[in-house]
Amino acid sequence: MTELRHITSINDLTNHEIETTFSLADKYLSELGDIRPTGRTRKKRSLTTHRIGRSGHAGAGSILASLFYEPSTRTRLSFESAMLRLGGGTITSSDPATSSAAKGESLADTVRVVSSYADAIVIRHPRDGAAKLAAQYASIPVINAGDGGHEHPTQTLCDLFTLYRREKQRLKNLNNLNVVISGDLRGSRTVHSFVYALARFKARIQFVPGAAGMGLPPHVEWRLRNEFHCLPEDRKAGEDDVDLFYVTADQSHQLSLITPEIGIKMAKAKKAIDVIYVTRFQKERWKDQVQSYMKVDSAFLKDNKYKRTSVLHPLPRVGELDIALDRNPRAAYFQQASFGVPVRMALIAALLDFEGQHSLEKFASGFRPDSHVLYEQPHGIVCANPNCIVHDPLEGLYAANKHYIVDWLKPRLRCFYCENDIENFYVGHKKTRHYGLAGEAGKHMRDVILFADRAAAEAAGYKPRKSLSGAAKA
Amino acid sequence: MTELRHITSINDLTNHEIETTFSLADKYLSELGDIRPTGRTRKKRSLTTHRIGRSGHAGAGSILASLFYEPSTRTRLSFESAMLRLGGGTITSSDPATSSAAKGESLADTVRVVSSYADAIVIRHPRDGAAKLAAQYASIPVINAGDGGHEHPTQTLCDLFTLYRREKQRLKNLNNLNVVISGDLRGSRTVHSFVYALARFKARIQFVPGAAGMGLPPHVEWRLRNEFHCLPEDRKAGEDDVDLFYVTADQSHQLSLITPEIGIKMAKAKKAIDVIYVTRFQKERWKDQVQSYMKVDSAFLKDNKYKRTSVLHPLPRVGELDIALDRNPRAAYFQQASFGVPVRMALIAALLDFEGQHSLEKFASGFRPDSHVLYEQPHGIVCANPNCIVHDPLEGLYAANKHYIVDWLKPRLRCFYCENDIENFYVGHKKTRHYGLAGEAGKHMRDVILFADRAAAEAAGYKPRKSLSGAAKA
Amino acid sequence: MTELRHITSINDLTNHEIETTFSLADKYLSELGDIRPTGRTRKKRSLTTHRIGRSGHAGAGSILASLFYEPSTRTRLSFESAMLRLGGGTITSSDPATSSAAKGESLADTVRVVSSYADAIVIRHPRDGAAKLAAQYASIPVINAGDGGHEHPTQTLCDLFTLYRREKQRLKNLNNLNVVISGDLRGSRTVHSFVYALARFKARIQFVPGAAGMGLPPHVEWRLRNEFHCLPEDRKAGEDDVDLFYVTADQSHQLSLITPEIGIKMAKAKKAIDVIYVTRFQKERWKDQVQSYMKVDSAFLKDNKYKRTSVLHPLPRVGELDIALDRNPRAAYFQQASFGVPVRMALIAALLDFEGQHSLEKFASGFRPDSHVLYEQPHGIVCANPNCIVHDPLEGLYAANKHYIVDWLKPRLRCFYCENDIENFYVGHKKTRHYGLAGEAGKHMRDVILFADRAAAEAAGYKPRKSLSGAAKA
Repeated sequence: MTELRHITSINDLTNHEIETTFSLADKYLSELGDIRPTGRTRKKRSLTTHRIGRSGHAGAGSILASLFYEPSTRTRLSFESAMLRLGGGTITSSDPATSSAAKGESLADTVRVVSSYADAIVIRHPRDGAAKLAAQYASIPVINAGDGGHEHPTQTLCDLFTLYRREKQRLKNLNNLNVVISGDLRGSRTVHSFVYALARFKARIQFVPGAAGMGLPPHVEWRLRNEFHCLPEDRKAGEDDVDLFYVTADQSHQLSLITPEIGIKMAKAKKAIDVIYVTRFQKERWKDQVQSYMKVDSAFLKDNKYKRTSVLHPLPRVGELDIALDRNPRAAYFQQASFGVPVRMALIAALLDFEGQHSLEKFASGFRPDSHVLYEQPHGIVCANPNCIVHDPLEGLYAANKHYIVDWLKPRLRCFYCENDIENFYVGHKKTRHYGLAGEAGKHMRDVILFADRAAAEAAGYKPRKSLSGAAKA
Repeated sequence: MTELRHITSINDLTNHEIETTFSLADKYLSELGDIRPTGRTRKKRSLTTHRIGRSGHAGAGSILASLFYEPSTRTRLSFESAMLRLGGGTITSSDPATSSAAKGESLADTVRVVSSYADAIVIRHPRDGAAKLAAQYASIPVINAGDGGHEHPTQTLCDLFTLYRREKQRLKNLNNLNVVISGDLRGSRTVHSFVYALARFKARIQFVPGAAGMGLPPHVEWRLRNEFHCLPEDRKAGEDDVDLFYVTADQSHQLSLITPEIGIKMAKAKKAIDVIYVTRFQKERWKDQVQSYMKVDSAFLKDNKYKRTSVLHPLPRVGELDIALDRNPRAAYFQQASFGVPVRMALIAALLDFEGQHSLEKFASGFRPDSHVLYEQPHGIVCANPNCIVHDPLEGLYAANKHYIVDWLKPRLRCFYCENDIENFYVGHKKTRHYGLAGEAGKHMRDVILFADRAAAEAAGYKPRKSLSGAAKA
Repeated sequence: MTELRHITSINDLTNHEIETTFSLADKYLSELGDIRPTGRTRKKRSLTTHRIGRSGHAGAGSILASLFYEPSTRTRLSFESAMLRLGGGTITSSDPATSSAAKGESLADTVRVVSSYADAIVIRHPRDGAAKLAAQYASIPVINAGDGGHEHPTQTLCDLFTLYRREKQRLKNLNNLNVVISGDLRGSRTVHSFVYALARFKARIQFVPGAAGMGLPPHVEWRLRNEFHCLPEDRKAGEDDVDLFYVTADQSHQLSLITPEIGIKMAKAKKAIDVIYVTRFQKERWKDQVQSYMKVDSAFLKDNKYKRTSVLHPLPRVGELDIALDRNPRAAYFQQASFGVPVRMALIAALLDFEGQHSLEKFASGFRPDSHVLYEQPHGIVCANPNCIVHDPLEGLYAANKHYIVDWLKPRLRCFYCENDIENFYVGHKKTRHYGLAGEAGKHMRDVILFADRAAAEAAGYKPRKSLSGAAKA
């Protein structure tokens, strides 16, 4: 009996699984014919069609359900195209206003029902952690196509596959890339999935927030440093022994980063830049700062260190990438989009066991270190991320308050759903009915209840701990 | 040459046809593999897919058109999944705002056109009787997926199939079930289809309206008593000889029904309850009464007579079914939803003659007693149901004023479209130009014109009938 | 290597290609079985399905992408049905509000990306010229399913195919038809495509605008006269030597055309009318004039010259065609709609080379006389049509200012995208820095820059030309 696999985070896949998926994607890409998105000529369709036909049997009879609670064209259509190219079929709910969500149905109920209509679910949702909630209730594999500001793992697979293909042409591989990521690092779920993957492939990452407040979320940075072993770059020492160069996204920095000084700062780094990853200015989120947003164009790329840079963008773009770049050979973003189909074909095929030796069922688990203890309580401390699925009035009814206990002595909880962290909280011991600040309140993790603050603890009838030793006795 | 079959009402199918459909659904269910919607493990997909493949050829090349003028996820996706599992394809119009309806196209024109694009149409519409109007103009089979407050016959097939499967495990069958139906009995089209079917399978039905005004519509109750031979239960006499126990939904009753007293009242019935059918609180319809709506939970089910009860719900639920019930073995609602695909596969296959001996074309007609004379006039009396399709300013142009004459002496007309009844009307005799109240105006049904009231009759130039004999002479 | 073919205008197809497409449509129609949209009986589905199965392999593995930025049911569903009947699959984005357009993505980027998801794109868009812009960026064939008020070429194929089938039954063909076109000739894109095709098949066309201001757009009329060789009819001379009878749509004429006098005026033409083409009253465009719009009904058709007339309508109708006509054998509009699937099957198959000898790849180009020089400049004169795609704030960034120079001495430019003409403009000679009114400014077309008016020329630093000879020297 194999366990049900879901892809809610890029960390649900090991590096080896990512590479396995890419070798399958290579095969599908070759069967689909060379896709030349900007070319004006094409191969004879009859040949192409014939080739498609070969992989067209792998998924015959299978159904992919698309549940999209947020707008999408690229992601949804490429998933659906992938399933059709595999020989399967698709059922689609892409407009919350015309679905049962309009009648007030919960996501948990929807995915349980849709599990009996399809063989896999691909879901996009405005709430962080929605994919994890869906996975908790589904009886078929769930693939996260973007959940709020959390992650977008299949976009990352397309991003990485683009780099894998381009580096392979230079006889290189995915390891040790020198990457610049610009734009809205805080709100962009594609960036969050991407940086975890980059760190796992030993990249050197330079972060260039598009404006004040657009820096990497603290919990993502914390994970990069503490779980993915990235180090802040000591710019005075040699650079080759560091993995991470991080520009803190406070006000003073942004002002210098969004002007030509960005180039100057980058120029100080000696190594050639392999990748610039540009993200969309999300106007719905950052209303007043459009004028300060970085724009990547030919002038920007004139420095010698960008000579061989691949410019990536998850698209859609809305002004941060100059249209005139499109014909530049360094512009990799349409190629990146064109890989959406073979990469998603590979992921679906691997999850649904269409291709024997490439099945993801054969692997025990992803990269995610699940060694953390999971703490679950019906009431008490809740995720601090206001956009987490647990705070949705309806969906929250189906989501337990679940937290990974990442560290007990340097206290840190991680929401099971959205993976945001809580650092300061209080621990009550059920036997003594005393509470104290986590970290100071003893190392016993059994028979405890967690509180967000003193008021919550006292409201539950707990009293302040007298001394460390007192708590330790509990 | 076989006649075109439509499924606009559960009464378009005979009991024998329902059972034939279920035996086909059994076969498809077995081919699909055991669906376990809440399980965390699953069979190897390669095997399942292989099995699906077998029935996957039956409908190859066929197309199902989904025309949804109201929100849906479950019904539409399960129909589309069913067609794909049969090997066919689907075309979908699920948002009135982006269809030709936005340009003012009538349903009649739409279905005539779509009849040349597909092999069957499944339709959902906010107006009662819309499916019947569609069937009148389509040249391919029309399946009603819910028309206003009228019927939802395929939901009833899923409901019945769930009971059929569960009862079969106890070596029982669909006959003589003891059923409680709670919620919005007036507005729920699923209830209307369900009660006709239950009556035909000799069920004992207890109605528990969710609140004041939510009782069964009078015309549905009339049909149950007069056409489906249900009797009101004499609670002082023995119970085994009655079919129907009806709690009138007036104010005083509801007040007692929505509290624990409901349980007490039910407890008075001695027989074990086989089925509780709970329906959604339709907040769009009943704005102010949410607090009085019955909730089914473990406490409710603690009485011994619910020991083996199957709890059904057409879903989505919005609070009337406790989430904590989901893991209770009596909770049958996710199983019920999971049967959507095999049951709809069976219905489509039977309608489109995919499976020789199971074809619905082989049966002459449904249960519906079509012996009633159909009365049609361009002007004059119109359906009294304000939500009937005939009252839609556009669609009404394509709908004749058609009524079945259910009874002439105890006067009762039934709208051909929405099946609501009219009891009091006036009859004018075209030769004598006299009119009188139906029932008193003679038993001649030829050369008559029907009026809703005296004013309409006099406006048309008719004069009051002088005497009974005078009318009889006409 | 064959060139990529797009169908953005009916003039992208030669007459021979149209006939080739129709012979393929004949074959598909026969395989689909005789479609009888208003009939109450049908063939056994098993046979029909079997027949469909035969052509069902032609497109196996191919994918059609529907990108609909405007409401549609008929066109989108018939395209999707066509692709399914050919054995292929479909991916659909039919609601701008739930697509990446909602995030501000340009059409150019969208089609570049979707080019790698599918084998052909069918697009509908509210802007004139949008299909041409899409074709410019796509790397797979683009089919125009209606772009603003420009064209709707596949509707015209369905219209013509209906006439081709009906005339064949009378042992006639598509040539020399006597056609009346009524309604909104200005705003109806279906009319624009239709009249070009009719002119190419030597029809005599009578235009009957539905109301004041609904006459044929001047640039369409100009093309009919000057490029399609139509002549205004001299009603006193013999009629057989003329092709075009044009009723100018000024106020005084309309008043007479919308009353019974229409019939009288038409009666003066001696030849029997082969076709009346009625178009929808577009209430979103003409709010106040609904009462004056012509209605075609049995009374209208009672004149003897309409005895064998085919009444066509692209549907949906909203009152301009009497419902009571539907059963009249002259009513061809449901037949016309029913041909949507075989005609679009044929077009897709021909474009994607599914059927060897019928491939459109074998033809060098369409009817469009591409001998006009294309003039492109980044700034300067822009299309005068305010609804042209070049005026969309976002899409315009991707559209160059491209104009065909239709005539230099009788100056006329034609927008590359929407095909509206500009007649009066100014020409600046880059060497002399002088400008003058086109036509007077010399016949040299090299090293010139075009301006919409004097102000624009002077703002660019150009001075008025002194004399003709001065300009000629340049």
